Amino acid sequence: MRELIEKVFLRHFGMHAGLADSASISVDGSSLAYTTDSFVVDPLFFPGGNIGKLAVSGTVNDLSTCGAIPKFISCGFIIEEGFRIADLDKIVESMASEAKKAGVRIVTGDTKVVKRDQCDKLYINTSGIGYLPEDRKHICTGETIRPGDKIIVSGTLGDHAITILSEREGLTTGHQLESDVAPLNNLTEKILGQPENIRFMRDITRGGLATILAEICENKTFGIEIEEGRIPVRESVRSISELYGFNPLFLANEGKMLFIVKKETDEKILRQLHTEETGKDATIIGEVTEEHQGIAVLKSVIGGKRIIEMLGGEILPRIC
Amino acid sequence: MRELIEKVFLRHFGMHAGLADSASISVDGSSLAYTTDSFVVDPLFFPGGNIGKLAVSGTVNDLSTCGAIPKFISCGFIIEEGFRIADLDKIVESMASEAKKAGVRIVTGDTKVVKRDQCDKLYINTSGIGYLPEDRKHICTGETIRPGDKIIVSGTLGDHAITILSEREGLTTGHQLESDVAPLNNLTEKILGQPENIRFMRDITRGGLATILAEICENKTFGIEIEEGRIPVRESVRSISELYGFNPLFLANEGKMLFIVKKETDEKILRQLHTEETGKDATIIGEVTEEHQGIAVLKSVIGGKRIIEMLGGEILPRIC
Repeated sequence: MRELIEKVFLRHFGMHAGLADSASISVDGSSLAYTTDSFVVDPLFFPGGNIGKLAVSGTVNDLSTCGAIPKFISCGFIIEEGFRIADLDKIVESMASEAKKAGVRIVTGDTKVVKRDQCDKLYINTSGIGYLPEDRKHICTGETIRPGDKIIVSGTLGDHAITILSEREGLTTGHQLESDVAPLNNLTEKILGQPENIRFMRDITRGGLATILAEICENKTFGIEIEEGRIPVRESVRSISELYGFNPLFLANEGKMLFIVKKETDEKILRQLHTEETGKDATIIGEVTEEHQGIAVLKSVIGGKRIIEMLGGEILPRIC
Repeated sequence: MRELIEKVFLRHFGMHAGLADSASISVDGSSLAYTTDSFVVDPLFFPGGNIGKLAVSGTVNDLSTCGAIPKFISCGFIIEEGFRIADLDKIVESMASEAKKAGVRIVTGDTKVVKRDQCDKLYINTSGIGYLPEDRKHICTGETIRPGDKIIVSGTLGDHAITILSEREGLTTGHQLESDVAPLNNLTEKILGQPENIRFMRDITRGGLATILAEICENKTFGIEIEEGRIPVRESVRSISELYGFNPLFLANEGKMLFIVKKETDEKILRQLHTEETGKDATIIGEVTEEHQGIAVLKSVIGGKRIIEMLGGEILPRIC
């Protein structure tokens, strides 16, 4: 289905499938980033957030990941008849609060109500506009990545996906599980004072870290090597992942960023990341290599190496 | 429901409910118009168009109506599992073709697939960005409207709503019915060479002409008077409207614009409108008055006058 859809859209719209989550556009001489996402997460409320927080964070992060400064958000609501106003109020309140945190304004919106069984409670679409400074344009394309660069993840992997799974399956564990959903633009701005030190950023959503790393290398004259032992994963996430046969490297996050940074500045950037709540567990997990060009490799704890592949299908439907 | 929702959104987002279909925003010194809409029309295909054509036209028109020049569009698709790829292809093809006609680029998109009965076949959200020239900013607010100004509608009223109704109810009439759905930016650009002559524009969608006229006058120091006999309505639309007890003044259109123009330039503007296919039936239907301040009035064919009220509820669900 996904492949067919992409063929349909790409063919008719003349889009090119690239790494970017946002489109770079130019209006009246200004460079902007522009993005959209529909949110159909089930359940609507989950530990750590709800569909509204997810929508604002997701759109802010799609802009931030390109180096853009998120400015404005639009929202479209499709609501099933009979949906509780009290729940809608909580969701909208949380959108407003996340927008405030991220320094973006929700400026335009639309609401459609459909009959019972014509939508599953509530779907939200958000789009976003960000300002893209000239000296950050390389961050979206990754064109300055070179061997020796260090690879950093902003925190633990798999929290969002496993939280949604647990809610849906009614799993009770001894551990506290919570989605990591959060806007990350305050985190990215923290390290963008010297944008030339940042080679690439990407929020680690559908497809997980593995898919991003494989995509970055594809057809390039460099490789990537990361160390399994350095990848931060919560014990609760690891144990549920094992139970279901999931690899946290492929799981979706909603408040995690991958950074590729200039080698000499890695420790300084790490310290800057650690000053933000959303980056307190940031870790250097590997580097860009001259070897195995075009291929991302995982070095296991016991020293073995294996190729990191892209995620083929979809592990969990409706996680965002 | 609508009232409650508006209270929820306006309260949390700090938006103000205004006349405008688009938000005016400023990024890096440039003035932009920004809008969003979700489309849930049923049926997806109808005489004159489909949900894709509707989505692109609707967003282009929300930008054009403010005097903005539409530039970029985003689209988010929520698709029910099992939806026919051939139908999706037709819809996407028609979006691409309308975008081309309107001179806008569809630059970013998103697709979510949900299970059967979690959506009614297909919903589309579009957002749009337009460039808003400095000398057109009065068009959105209507701040230059004054007594004597002429009121023009770009063509026949009610075509879209009655077409959708007929398709849904399986009505067969002797007359050909077709939705008027179309992007109107080529029409509005035709008359915007001298923007000071155009006091106000508004695409005549949900709520119909009546609601717009009542809104324009509300709390203002002018009134509006239109002549029933001058309002263009197709015979087929009129007869079905009578059958269902609808007044075409309240029916939604998807390719019709209301213009308020400087008195001295009305005939010239009318001639300009007539040169475009989407404006060939444009008609002067009334004027802005000094009398009955704050109130829009309809002069009937036999000379009686009655107050034009806003539409209270929703005549037809899911017409867009």
